[in-house]
Amino acid sequence: MHIVITGGAGFLGQRLATRLLARGELRGEAIQRLTLVDQVEPPCPPSDTVDVAGRALDITEPGALDTVLDARPQVVYHLAAVVSSAAEADLDLGMEVNFDATRALLEGCRGRGLANTRLIMASSVAAYGGELPAVLDDMTALQPQNSYGTQKAMCELLINDYSRRGLVDGCVLRLPTIIVRPGRPNAAASSFASSILREPLNGEEAICPVATSLQLFVMSPAKVIEALIHGAEVPGEALAPFRAFMLPGITVSVAEMLDTLRQVAGDEALARVRHEPDPRIEAIVASWPARFETRRAEALGFAGDRSLHDIVMAFIEERSR
Amino acid sequence: MHIVITGGAGFLGQRLATRLLARGELRGEAIQRLTLVDQVEPPCPPSDTVDVAGRALDITEPGALDTVLDARPQVVYHLAAVVSSAAEADLDLGMEVNFDATRALLEGCRGRGLANTRLIMASSVAAYGGELPAVLDDMTALQPQNSYGTQKAMCELLINDYSRRGLVDGCVLRLPTIIVRPGRPNAAASSFASSILREPLNGEEAICPVATSLQLFVMSPAKVIEALIHGAEVPGEALAPFRAFMLPGITVSVAEMLDTLRQVAGDEALARVRHEPDPRIEAIVASWPARFETRRAEALGFAGDRSLHDIVMAFIEERSR
Ligand SMILES: NC(=O)c1ccc[n+]([C@@H]2O[C@H](COP(=O)([O-])OP(=O)(O)OC[C@H]3O[C@@H](n4cnc5c(N)ncnc54)[C@H](O)[C@@H]3O)[C@@H](O)[C@H]2O)c1
Ligand SMILES: NC(=O)c1ccc[n+]([C@@H]2O[C@H](COP(=O)([O-])OP(=O)(O)OC[C@H]3O[C@@H](n4cnc5c(N)ncnc54)[C@H](O)[C@@H]3O)[C@@H](O)[C@H]2O)c1
Repeated sequence: MHIVITGGAGFLGQRLATRLLARGELRGEAIQRLTLVDQVEPPCPPSDTVDVAGRALDITEPGALDTVLDARPQVVYHLAAVVSSAAEADLDLGMEVNFDATRALLEGCRGRGLANTRLIMASSVAAYGGELPAVLDDMTALQPQNSYGTQKAMCELLINDYSRRGLVDGCVLRLPTIIVRPGRPNAAASSFASSILREPLNGEEAICPVATSLQLFVMSPAKVIEALIHGAEVPGEALAPFRAFMLPGITVSVAEMLDTLRQVAGDEALARVRHEPDPRIEAIVASWPARFETRRAEALGFAGDRSLHDIVMAFIEERSR
Repeated sequence: MHIVITGGAGFLGQRLATRLLARGELRGEAIQRLTLVDQVEPPCPPSDTVDVAGRALDITEPGALDTVLDARPQVVYHLAAVVSSAAEADLDLGMEVNFDATRALLEGCRGRGLANTRLIMASSVAAYGGELPAVLDDMTALQPQNSYGTQKAMCELLINDYSRRGLVDGCVLRLPTIIVRPGRPNAAASSFASSILREPLNGEEAICPVATSLQLFVMSPAKVIEALIHGAEVPGEALAPFRAFMLPGITVSVAEMLDTLRQVAGDEALARVRHEPDPRIEAIVASWPARFETRRAEALGFAGDRSLHDIVMAFIEERSR
């Protein structure tokens, strides 16, 4: 079993690599090779049994993935992407990285007859938009209101068509908002969603820029990684007629998040959250759908977190490791 | 007012050109120039007042539309496309004509600052697929099960994003099945839908390859042309948040079509339809959705046919002109 991860130096790429090495197998086969590709040299988690290689490549360069695909990997995780704000700031960059490079990857598989290579891509809740129903389901239209979501939705269509034509074996997972991310607050509009839990648990102050009634559709990093692994193992036939769907996140309000913080770490921790409404952030985040029926993902065996409490406890446990 | 029509030699392109010249104005402005672009030299309908030009161009050639766009047209109808069967037979051809050329057209508008140029594209019922509800609406997902529909759906997303960014002023109309097309039966799976009316009305035999209970979502050529004209006139602000939607067709069964034929032309005409079930055609056509709620199109002022009877009478009237 040879696995490739594009975006292998990123948040999910590194966690996925570590998890795959800890498992040692995928699809019932021992992992022999793991190739991490990123524009920055990806750190290689150590392994005694697996040949782990990091390749510094810009996937927008013509033929960038040629030698990687020549090795005929059985599983390709395509996680390289520029994020929402970068794709909005630079249309060409977003189109090249998020769309054209995905198309080149599909063509690379097609040209080499990698019909049975499972290609797993991460799409996003940002692909939804427009006049959405109160509860979204697997047949809700993608009418993205940002370029990142547009590019992700176009990739979904293309991966589905190449898979339908038997040119590759694709599977696209739409990821909920991921909490609790480790690290520091960043420029992302969703940054506060991790921050209002992470910082107080670390004894630091956090700012909550939105109303406590605001709801989010969330998943823990661990469950996202589990879903990526399951995405390699679910049988291709089961993925028809459309190979992209939302993962089973859970719907939580900011009030519930703060309540869980207090339950877990007391009034002292809660007091570290300052409420400073930011209408700009509120407007962006409020436009993201927060309620989904995720029947397809569940029928395919994808599982989400049991509760917000579990998510927070998992973060605390991981941090103390 | 300068108008460009790509696919100007095609069925809809030629009718649209004739109709525009008969009107003489669009968006309240007198039409001065009309440029028809097609890979085959488009016939130019005569006009005393409008400068009508036909250009033989392959829109997949780099820069093919440069001189056309340099003239800064106010309205571009983008109707050039390869049809469903051709796009299915040749993935590269379909991607180049149906997707890449649309993207190049968008880039051409962007590069010239044609932010106010209204770009009208024709999408299709073939963009729908998968596990569809009994009645589709404006928020039903596009999960195409053919490459043509995939390419159309990708164009919808891209035109919406370029419009949202203020780079062009796009509007995409999803067309129902068009009946009654003049001419001869062809290889299209939907060919029978026109044939079972047209041939008997012309005193000829027709073959009905599907069950009479089968339903279709249809629109007359005249109403499609009216919709294309309205698509140039509807205000851009009204098109947000998503600039692609289904036109208001009507749902008809094959039994109703045959019944209308009998009402209009008697038992003799009806007797010219031979029933020869073709499971291959039945399977394709039965997968096309036949029931839609088209609220957005109606709210935007797009109108469909009043009845199947009207559609058939309009065909008879046009034929006798
Ligand atoms: N983290 C989330 O909340 C979330 C939510 C939805 C979807 N996603 C998607 O999941 C995937 C992984 O997300 P992440 O959080 O790990 O993001 P990340 O930004 O940490 O990782 C993405 C990686 O892609 C690499 N990359 C960018 N351009 C490249 C290029 N031209 N060539 C090679 N590598 C390039 C970056 O260097 C980075 O290491 C992305 O596709 C992202 O869109 C993430
Ligand atoms: N007629 C229908 O039932 C229907 C239904 C849904 C959507 N549409 C769409 O409406 C549009 C017009 O349909 P139509 O029925 O007039 O089709 P048509 O085939 O009669 O016309 C399309 C024209 O595009 C031209 N063309 C193809 N490739 C080209 C290239 N590389 N460069 C330049 N020109 C090229 C063809 O020569 C042809 O004249 C198409 O986009 C079609 O997909 C039609």
